[in-house]
Amino acid sequence: MGSWTVYLSGEIHSDWRERIHAGVEAAGLAVELVSPVTDHDTSDNAGVEILGAEQNSVWHDRKGAGLNAIRTRTLIERADVVVVRFGDKYRQWNAAFDAGYATAIGTPVVTMHGPDTAHALKEVDAAALAVAETPEQVVKILAYVVEGTL
Amino acid sequence: MGSWTVYLSGEIHSDWRERIHAGVEAAGLAVELVSPVTDHDTSDNAGVEILGAEQNSVWHDRKGAGLNAIRTRTLIERADVVVVRFGDKYRQWNAAFDAGYATAIGTPVVTMHGPDTAHALKEVDAAALAVAETPEQVVKILAYVVEGTL
Amino acid sequence: MGSWTVYLSGEIHSDWRERIHAGVEAAGLAVELVSPVTDHDTSDNAGVEILGAEQNSVWHDRKGAGLNAIRTRTLIERADVVVVRFGDKYRQWNAAFDAGYATAIGTPVVTMHGPDTAHALKEVDAAALAVAETPEQVVKILAYVVEGTL
Amino acid sequence: MGSWTVYLSGEIHSDWRERIHAGVEAAGLAVELVSPVTDHDTSDNAGVEILGAEQNSVWHDRKGAGLNAIRTRTLIERADVVVVRFGDKYRQWNAAFDAGYATAIGTPVVTMHGPDTAHALKEVDAAALAVAETPEQVVKILAYVVEGTL
Amino acid sequence: MGSWTVYLSGEIHSDWRERIHAGVEAAGLAVELVSPVTDHDTSDNAGVEILGAEQNSVWHDRKGAGLNAIRTRTLIERADVVVVRFGDKYRQWNAAFDAGYATAIGTPVVTMHGPDTAHALKEVDAAALAVAETPEQVVKILAYVVEGTL
Amino acid sequence: MGSWTVYLSGEIHSDWRERIHAGVEAAGLAVELVSPVTDHDTSDNAGVEILGAEQNSVWHDRKGAGLNAIRTRTLIERADVVVVRFGDKYRQWNAAFDAGYATAIGTPVVTMHGPDTAHALKEVDAAALAVAETPEQVVKILAYVVEGTL
Amino acid sequence: MGSWTVYLSGEIHSDWRERIHAGVEAAGLAVELVSPVTDHDTSDNAGVEILGAEQNSVWHDRKGAGLNAIRTRTLIERADVVVVRFGDKYRQWNAAFDAGYATAIGTPVVTMHGPDTAHALKEVDAAALAVAETPEQVVKILAYVVEGTL
Amino acid sequence: MGSWTVYLSGEIHSDWRERIHAGVEAAGLAVELVSPVTDHDTSDNAGVEILGAEQNSVWHDRKGAGLNAIRTRTLIERADVVVVRFGDKYRQWNAAFDAGYATAIGTPVVTMHGPDTAHALKEVDAAALAVAETPEQVVKILAYVVEGTL
Repeated sequence: MGSWTVYLSGEIHSDWRERIHAGVEAAGLAVELVSPVTDHDTSDNAGVEILGAEQNSVWHDRKGAGLNAIRTRTLIERADVVVVRFGDKYRQWNAAFDAGYATAIGTPVVTMHGPDTAHALKEVDAAALAVAETPEQVVKILAYVVEGTL
Repeated sequence: MGSWTVYLSGEIHSDWRERIHAGVEAAGLAVELVSPVTDHDTSDNAGVEILGAEQNSVWHDRKGAGLNAIRTRTLIERADVVVVRFGDKYRQWNAAFDAGYATAIGTPVVTMHGPDTAHALKEVDAAALAVAETPEQVVKILAYVVEGTL
Repeated sequence: MGSWTVYLSGEIHSDWRERIHAGVEAAGLAVELVSPVTDHDTSDNAGVEILGAEQNSVWHDRKGAGLNAIRTRTLIERADVVVVRFGDKYRQWNAAFDAGYATAIGTPVVTMHGPDTAHALKEVDAAALAVAETPEQVVKILAYVVEGTL
Repeated sequence: MGSWTVYLSGEIHSDWRERIHAGVEAAGLAVELVSPVTDHDTSDNAGVEILGAEQNSVWHDRKGAGLNAIRTRTLIERADVVVVRFGDKYRQWNAAFDAGYATAIGTPVVTMHGPDTAHALKEVDAAALAVAETPEQVVKILAYVVEGTL
Repeated sequence: MGSWTVYLSGEIHSDWRERIHAGVEAAGLAVELVSPVTDHDTSDNAGVEILGAEQNSVWHDRKGAGLNAIRTRTLIERADVVVVRFGDKYRQWNAAFDAGYATAIGTPVVTMHGPDTAHALKEVDAAALAVAETPEQVVKILAYVVEGTL
Repeated sequence: MGSWTVYLSGEIHSDWRERIHAGVEAAGLAVELVSPVTDHDTSDNAGVEILGAEQNSVWHDRKGAGLNAIRTRTLIERADVVVVRFGDKYRQWNAAFDAGYATAIGTPVVTMHGPDTAHALKEVDAAALAVAETPEQVVKILAYVVEGTL
Repeated sequence: MGSWTVYLSGEIHSDWRERIHAGVEAAGLAVELVSPVTDHDTSDNAGVEILGAEQNSVWHDRKGAGLNAIRTRTLIERADVVVVRFGDKYRQWNAAFDAGYATAIGTPVVTMHGPDTAHALKEVDAAALAVAETPEQVVKILAYVVEGTL
Repeated sequence: MGSWTVYLSGEIHSDWRERIHAGVEAAGLAVELVSPVTDHDTSDNAGVEILGAEQNSVWHDRKGAGLNAIRTRTLIERADVVVVRFGDKYRQWNAAFDAGYATAIGTPVVTMHGPDTAHALKEVDAAALAVAETPEQVVKILAYVVEGTL
């Protein structure tokens, strides 16, 4: 059926992407996983490193966010499925932004978060086709939608 | 001319998909056939198996339908042609839903059903580019549109 | 906020449209309700009445369905919300077709049916933003989304 | 030039919408302001009030979020400009979701937040055409883009 | 239900547009009829009259066709229905072009022509939702789709 | 730069497609040429051969045109360039239809016809990016746009 | 036929907009003319006036350009026709940007410039449906496309 | 992650494309660089060389621009990123046109120019996700967005 491209958006402080990678590989799924730049410093500083320093932190951030958007927009547009991870401690507005973007272009969204954030995420979850709690559930979802088996 | 992707939507209780597969293979057509999950129990229970049990059958179904939609939307979006099969005994509202979805995104629809359901399907058939009765006719249609020969 | 256009698709054998009309009027909502042609004979025979008789019932139906599609596609494209009613006794494949069409173009869908058909409609319901059972619930939904009050 | 429709998304705990309403009215701008349902309890409970109670809070929320999405999607699709307000204390993932949705459909976004959240919002701000701090600045922006004067 | 806009494309040598106008008016339909410029000389010469003479007839025609396209594209984009009239004697490639354009953007097409041209028009007719022979049939179609009555 | 797909629409009574094929091959261009079914009888009869005979020639034609549309719509949607050939003797309304369809979806159109039909084709030519007279010119155009050389 | 909206993009140093306004009014055309903010200082400084001063001229300009884009994108999206004026002395890259934007969304473009810039503008002119030299010609074009008369 | 296609639009008088090519190759990036025809004479004369001479320079240019548009539109539609280079001496309206076109279809734009033209390009830069000065910066941007590393 050809390969599926899955974009992994959101929180960068836990090993959830690694666990999905491991699960996809172990299951031998025809799934290519893509992500934003997940190294925090690199992501924050790419703009000024390449395009020149800024004194004002707002423009420092703007330059970096522009570069990140080139990557993330392109990958989200290519993705068959967008998985969006929300952690308890962070605001991850960019993850919610990605979920809204994917919804508007008709790409299926899977959210992943714990029950503590369920109420705060109710509008986002209502736009998703699945709400998972663990990376292992996400792997099972991918196995099911790609291979049709449990 | 490259390969054609054909999505086979609808009824899962007869061997129509197998007969189309066999015909496409026998004719050596450059056609990739894709389908929803056709194992009834798997399709019904995937949601709760992966994401946790539900007491209320409505939410049991909702979880499963969400996962199925990840697969079916993606495959319909990829398809060059959508074949939609209606049987006499079943309501197959999801098949008619797929026909409406494919029509709205401009993908050619071929319906397949017997004369007994022709009147009930008149609005759907009017949106289709061909109305077939048998899997063998569908194979001939695919041979004609892909290879240009009868 | 301007008026909302709501398309009422599906079953034509009960008074559900009249009850929604009455409720919308009683509540004074800024909602314009539009529908397919709901007179069964008119809808079936418009094609041949205008464009000439057909001996074969398939083409009799095709001519009528073409005219109906001019109306229904136009009204669905204009609609802010599409309400799709499924009855227990009928197959209403065109209603499910309309739900698929509306979903593909991003128009919110509200389904309306009893619990007996819930399992058969699970894929359609999963694409809907609300699942109602009665016309009165539909009126309350419209009041809520248009006026923001319960 | 005709009227402009402006959707006010986000935080519902301060009087920022009222201040924008007052400013738009005082300036006599041809601007129609629209919003999600901003009464917290109404917004949370509309789903179960209309469609029946749920024991599980997840489905309680899902029913409400579905109804809210009928309103918000429709209004965002109609809007010429989407203003998205982020407060310091709340996560407002739905506001970021709206910003992503508006960006994907090409509708200009204006964000409004204090400097404390600037870094967390850098990806969202980079997708916006203006970043304001106060409702009064938003009013001035609307006056400028609609009337062309400062 | 609001007014319908109907674009009348094609042959300019008979009184078919006048007969549709008369029929729509007599029936009191909420239909606005729009057309390309139907004065042959005006249509041919508008380009050079406004933008300067050309020695080569190809560029004479190109200038005129550019102006005509500003009008026709705009009106086709606004139209709810496009009626395309083919006569026996003329090639009316622009009418067929309009039918293709309308089909691609999803606007319902009604063709109008005699049986002598039916075979030559089979591909165009297959893309249409109705095939009429007379202006009076077109008026009845409009009455049916707009008012729902025969 | 990857391969280009070029759809060759229109007249089937001369050897223009063969000459373009020969030229593309001789020049070694990375161009895949695709076409509708160009065998006249096959194209006319495919519908009834596969789906059953019709007494009325209109429905005989409709069945065939439906199958042809599955092929032509799919190939036009895949094409980078659509070449549309008009001959002096034929009406080729389907060629003009294809030109309109391609224009509406933003695919570059090249028309090919002699000077005798230039005036009749002025609206179509104005929508084209090039107007050629011979297959050899079309080959040179393809060489230029694909390889950037004369 | 309803009113036409025409966006006037480009050079702000001559009275070409005033002349088009006068001509449209004199001719009594159902045309609404809209424009970017044409006061040079207001346009340059709106960003920092409303959103706070910037030391670096790049960010000073960025803030202003963001606000201008809210206005121009909205008006271009609403426009039926985009007129783009290029002067001899200025670079007007934003005018060419608007022409590209309008072309991509399928809105007819009319360029207006003298013969001295014709070669430099050849790619832009090839995307336009008319190339005028004077405001009076633009008025005649509008009269022709809206009223169908010379 | 698959290869990225990057379109290099604009100025043809310096070696900026060669430097980006060299940098991409040296870095081993999975990037395919595509460009308009950059040989000035070829680009200017292709139209008349293939399609016949024109006396009037306007039509000479129009024929060439048509052919160039077949290439540039196709490549811009395929591109993941569009880099637009503006030089100090030239007007490059076609570069700004490409930037507008890319923006409208949602493709990320990177502009490249010196500080002297920053003010004149402020509207274009505000639509870009990065503003570079040198080809080496563009290479670093591509390395960052494709590989995620600095």
